Amino acid sequence: MSFDALVLDLATRARAASLKLAAASSEEKNRALHTLADLLVAEAPTLLEANARDVAAASANGLSAPMVDRLRLDPKRLAALAASVREVAALPDPVGEIVDHSVRPNGLDLSRVRVPLGVIAIIYESRPNVTIDCAVLCLKAGNASLLRGGSESFHSNTALAALVSRALASSGLPADAVILIPTTDRAALPALLKLDHLIQCVIPRGGEKLIRFVVENSRIPVIKHYKGVCSLYLHPDADTAMAASLAVNSKCSRPSACNALENLLVHQSRLADLWPAVARELLARGVQLRCDSASLAAAETAGLIEQFPGKLIPANENDWGEEYLDLILAVKTVTDLDGAISFINTHGSAHSDSIVTKDKTAAERFLREVDSAAVYWNASTRFTDGGEFGLGAEIGISTDRLHARGPMGLRELCTIKWVARGTGQVR
Amino acid sequence: MSFDALVLDLATRARAASLKLAAASSEEKNRALHTLADLLVAEAPTLLEANARDVAAASANGLSAPMVDRLRLDPKRLAALAASVREVAALPDPVGEIVDHSVRPNGLDLSRVRVPLGVIAIIYESRPNVTIDCAVLCLKAGNASLLRGGSESFHSNTALAALVSRALASSGLPADAVILIPTTDRAALPALLKLDHLIQCVIPRGGEKLIRFVVENSRIPVIKHYKGVCSLYLHPDADTAMAASLAVNSKCSRPSACNALENLLVHQSRLADLWPAVARELLARGVQLRCDSASLAAAETAGLIEQFPGKLIPANENDWGEEYLDLILAVKTVTDLDGAISFINTHGSAHSDSIVTKDKTAAERFLREVDSAAVYWNASTRFTDGGEFGLGAEIGISTDRLHARGPMGLRELCTIKWVARGTGQVR
Repeated sequence: MSFDALVLDLATRARAASLKLAAASSEEKNRALHTLADLLVAEAPTLLEANARDVAAASANGLSAPMVDRLRLDPKRLAALAASVREVAALPDPVGEIVDHSVRPNGLDLSRVRVPLGVIAIIYESRPNVTIDCAVLCLKAGNASLLRGGSESFHSNTALAALVSRALASSGLPADAVILIPTTDRAALPALLKLDHLIQCVIPRGGEKLIRFVVENSRIPVIKHYKGVCSLYLHPDADTAMAASLAVNSKCSRPSACNALENLLVHQSRLADLWPAVARELLARGVQLRCDSASLAAAETAGLIEQFPGKLIPANENDWGEEYLDLILAVKTVTDLDGAISFINTHGSAHSDSIVTKDKTAAERFLREVDSAAVYWNASTRFTDGGEFGLGAEIGISTDRLHARGPMGLRELCTIKWVARGTGQVR
Repeated sequence: MSFDALVLDLATRARAASLKLAAASSEEKNRALHTLADLLVAEAPTLLEANARDVAAASANGLSAPMVDRLRLDPKRLAALAASVREVAALPDPVGEIVDHSVRPNGLDLSRVRVPLGVIAIIYESRPNVTIDCAVLCLKAGNASLLRGGSESFHSNTALAALVSRALASSGLPADAVILIPTTDRAALPALLKLDHLIQCVIPRGGEKLIRFVVENSRIPVIKHYKGVCSLYLHPDADTAMAASLAVNSKCSRPSACNALENLLVHQSRLADLWPAVARELLARGVQLRCDSASLAAAETAGLIEQFPGKLIPANENDWGEEYLDLILAVKTVTDLDGAISFINTHGSAHSDSIVTKDKTAAERFLREVDSAAVYWNASTRFTDGGEFGLGAEIGISTDRLHARGPMGLRELCTIKWVARGTGQVR
């Protein structure tokens, strides 16, 4: 079968399943989720066998040890996965929520009601647990999902998706509501991404290159973030202890996360005292600092270059837009609040940015004028997360502006419909 | 200048203006709108002169009389346009609205706040008043707009856009917040539609061909509806008078509107009584009925074919998905509610669909299972409209599912940002 015919067949089946799933009750969906959680534990031997094939191939292909570890399933990880499925089952069902309601002057009773998006294609890489995370969030929100995982976890993904279909069927829901695309050949993607009459939304999760490929080939709306280049700005009146604490937490608590800090902006009036104190805390945790000339000179004056040899180096222009995902931080001196806001709007990725200040007026200007999905006053950028924001779970973070911005939970996997109940009204 | 360089320059200027406009107060925006309304009247001679050039060219090019009339401006139409601008000024400003607010367990104060989308490109055809409608709705919601109108109204659009920029500048707002693209060459569009780092949203308004061209060439999210193929289903228990009234209003009150009726679905049990009564009302208003074999036979039995010669003809498969925009209606017999729902989900355009019944259970199934932007029980499909739904004004109607579905008002021209105020919280 050609890729065109293959993806058309899969998407047609997913579309048919999505119409049935949209009408399913919360009880039916939750029953399927609990059955899946049971199966993830009961069928552990099958899953681990499939996973072992992926792990062996990855090792043979020379994948790095951390990458191989990300790929690996074990009974503990399966139990955690099952627990996360039960957590999603426990979340409130967004489908059917009345978003707003009015009675028009002519008596027409008008509601906006939350309903599923339809079919969601998710294109992702690497970790097999993403297969379950995405399938269950889509399912809970009443959507069918077309999953296209990475080649490294192909056997694991296939085994996991088969369990989801089994759980669906045994709960009276359409097995086609979750379909794993049985090829990881990138050549199948352009055909898939043209099926905008069958698929309502594409969510790519992975590296910037994969995401750009999806955006450039898709006729279907895409929700995404390319990268997280987050900044922390230290205003003239910033408290030193708070500045150091937020810089360290934003940078070091999980450097590989998209909400980790990549740029530190220091007001020039605090180069002599605040900056060396903050730098010292970061350096003590092994962070490399890539500094503009003013901050580098101030660090030298403070004796930091001598004390931490090789850890402070000059920055170049490319550093301002770089997502290091590592213990590296770019440092830029700014002359005022406008300079900080303009720097972030120019070089950042519109993800998460924070200001440290006691000055409410300055803070409110920062919160209003920094054009990012999440803006913070005196808090760590690391909070940008569905769980931390109270959404329960997230399918991803959007730096786009349409439909969803910031962490995407179950509601963001829904759309609305207008429902009008009348007694014969005409216009 | 090449098209690439031209549109890059325009979009860069619009992006810079959008950041300033996003921080503008309601007062500043409303002052610009009132100034514009004044200018539309005060500068009528200049506008009418520009419009006369378009009208002369259109007549010379052999445009139909109705098309030429759509193009024409006169003092009365300019006064109406000015009044509509003042109406938009009077609407509540969506920017800054707190969508929701919570205090997280760690004390982080978290809000979702409505903010402008950024730069919106609007690609439209024909009537010059669309230039003002779109510019003022974008402006009120804090967005810069890049307008690309049709060639027939190029001189009118140029003169109108110049007035908007004058109104902006005289109110202290960036003149570049509304830019008319100074070419109507379609070859400039693909370059424009790739600028997804500068333009946040594209709204095409016009024929299906134009819209498909935009979708196929855009890397920027598009909000649109291709067409409106709306259905009215008459359930076995439908009241005859109500069925006739709704069919007539939905079909005849404005046949060229996207929310006008194109398909009538009749339950087979009512072919002998309800259907001829409804048909008679439609035929009396000059509607041509394209009928499936069962409804045609029933019409013949009722003597309608004899009474209205040539107005009842056999339908073919293409009729079910056709948007006539004229006094033509396709008629299909269905055997049950499932058949009606399935017909609409297969052949309709997911715009607006209605059921006539006294049966609440049947109605609620129809409302839930018909997968359209607006679903009606005992009401005319013609209500799908921003004004009728209480949005104040609309920039268009979306049959898409992401971001906006149904009529799009000022809120749908906004996105949200997460605003977190802390006291040093770390994760």
